[in-house]
Amino acid sequence: MTLDELIKTPGEWLRGTGPLSDIVVSSRVRLARNVADFPFLSTAGASERTEICRHVSDGISRTSLSKDSLFVNVQEADVLDQQVLVERHLISRQHAASEGSRGVVIAHDETHALMINEEDHLRMQAFRSGLQLEALWEDINAVDDAVAAQVSFAFDRQFGFLTACPTNVGTGLRVSVMLHLPALKMTREIERVARAARDMHLAVRGLHGEGTEAAGDLYQVSNQTTLGKTEEGIVRTFQSTIIPKIVEYERAARESLLKHSATALDDKVWRAFGILSHARRISSEETQALLSPIRMGVNMGRFDVIDIHTLNELFLYTQPAHLQKRHGKPLSDDDRDVARAEYLRKQLLHTR
Amino acid sequence: MTLDELIKTPGEWLRGTGPLSDIVVSSRVRLARNVADFPFLSTAGASERTEICRHVSDGISRTSLSKDSLFVNVQEADVLDQQVLVERHLISRQHAASEGSRGVVIAHDETHALMINEEDHLRMQAFRSGLQLEALWEDINAVDDAVAAQVSFAFDRQFGFLTACPTNVGTGLRVSVMLHLPALKMTREIERVARAARDMHLAVRGLHGEGTEAAGDLYQVSNQTTLGKTEEGIVRTFQSTIIPKIVEYERAARESLLKHSATALDDKVWRAFGILSHARRISSEETQALLSPIRMGVNMGRFDVIDIHTLNELFLYTQPAHLQKRHGKPLSDDDRDVARAEYLRKQLLHTR
Repeated sequence: MTLDELIKTPGEWLRGTGPLSDIVVSSRVRLARNVADFPFLSTAGASERTEICRHVSDGISRTSLSKDSLFVNVQEADVLDQQVLVERHLISRQHAASEGSRGVVIAHDETHALMINEEDHLRMQAFRSGLQLEALWEDINAVDDAVAAQVSFAFDRQFGFLTACPTNVGTGLRVSVMLHLPALKMTREIERVARAARDMHLAVRGLHGEGTEAAGDLYQVSNQTTLGKTEEGIVRTFQSTIIPKIVEYERAARESLLKHSATALDDKVWRAFGILSHARRISSEETQALLSPIRMGVNMGRFDVIDIHTLNELFLYTQPAHLQKRHGKPLSDDDRDVARAEYLRKQLLHTR
Repeated sequence: MTLDELIKTPGEWLRGTGPLSDIVVSSRVRLARNVADFPFLSTAGASERTEICRHVSDGISRTSLSKDSLFVNVQEADVLDQQVLVERHLISRQHAASEGSRGVVIAHDETHALMINEEDHLRMQAFRSGLQLEALWEDINAVDDAVAAQVSFAFDRQFGFLTACPTNVGTGLRVSVMLHLPALKMTREIERVARAARDMHLAVRGLHGEGTEAAGDLYQVSNQTTLGKTEEGIVRTFQSTIIPKIVEYERAARESLLKHSATALDDKVWRAFGILSHARRISSEETQALLSPIRMGVNMGRFDVIDIHTLNELFLYTQPAHLQKRHGKPLSDDDRDVARAEYLRKQLLHTR
């Protein structure tokens, strides 16, 4: 299993299937853990950091998780490979950009990715396409049990699992769901929804997490705090209340658009397709912005020139690092925009 | 010969041929005349106006000009028909919008159109595609001679032909050339060219003359005054100096774009095509704005999906009145935008 093999498909988070997948692109749960008897990374020196990395990766390699999985030494990976992992949501931007010993263990089907030495010694993530948090909770528990059998985690009877950042102390759990909310954006209701979410102590973030734009109208909704809540409670509230409610709002906004401005809606979708399939140079941001109405059009049954699978491929492979990997070499900004337009034309005109 | 037959082709001014036709869409000369012993229209009453109209049209009907030509009673024509004539540049917007007896005699091939009771009793116009002012000067002289043999024009030995507006007194001649100047617009040199033209007492106007926008980057350049200049002098200066100079500037701007940003240029052309061929609703203004880079692309040999003939048809038939005439009935603004998009798709996707 190599990184080059990995990038041949869009992976789990863009599989485009699963419950409510017309709006919920994917679900993720992650657990933050630190190894007992080692300092947190904020105070660890370079050699301790290296020791932690080795200790954790050795532990993982003794579990069945290491079967059919890929270990990437993020410290030694070149920038393009680091960026590929970020674009696939397997590591965070912070993990790519930080320094020192660090790595990630990735399941061949990308259903889990274990970041070593991100903010905590170990951040275990499990992914599923669509809204599948309860299944993910079982997935991540199995991962946690397997690793915990090999590595002793820092745990306090009163506080629970100890983590670098207080918001993670306790369960160390973060539940996050990637939602496609173009209609709420178009009708300008997104701000109201985001405010309501914040009132419920949820974080609403862009495509690549904290401080990023909601490129392509993709929003990540996640819990902010974990202390004092049961893990099952958090997962259940997300799965059965919070996310279905947001999905309901988006559905209502789509129906309202359809009722009051179906032509405007179709026009937006078709123009996006017209530009994507004819441009001679195009940025990653514009590509994502234009793919968004098309995704909505396909999911609303108003556009059938391409399918969700193709759309997800376009979404992933037009991003800078994937584009360059497929091209076989690094490209300047300008050359990327031209190569991206060429790729889009080839894919989109082929489908006609 | 009926108006419905006339609109089947784009007519002379959009024929797309003739010298320098990659930049000079068409040339026009017009002569302003008033009938001797009748008051100017500014002081004429309704019945005098009617008498003038009858007198002039009777005079024209006795010439060979009336053969194969169409007389439109502009006063009685419905708004859609009036607007069709404006869109074809056969009558002015003022002529369409004014009141009282008025009409126009149009040659079947639209090489001339004689407006009766516009600002003057008679405004004789001759048109040719491309830059052909000297030939037009002969055309209009033949028209003038024919009409003058039947109608006695107001003439003063000192001032020449008398006209309603002092700027026309003397020769009554206006020479105007419709230029397509997208590169000067893109490079923002158009303002400099327009200033230089104004310094030479030329008027630079939009698609439909005074006070109109340069829709589709089409600019009308014409002489401002006629008193004290010979007609041949005005025509010659336009034909051999003024227009070739502006054409040269536009060519230089196009070459500069090609040299410094060929990809940006192609991108602009292809995106315009992508939008025009996929939109589900589109305004007349946006259509003209998007047809402009395509026209440039075709004329620069960088775009061959459609030809100039088709482009000129699209330019004319997407305008509001032509669109409604072809549709067979008046349409609301919204319905026009949808019908326009349908028409464009049909024409453009057919060409692929």
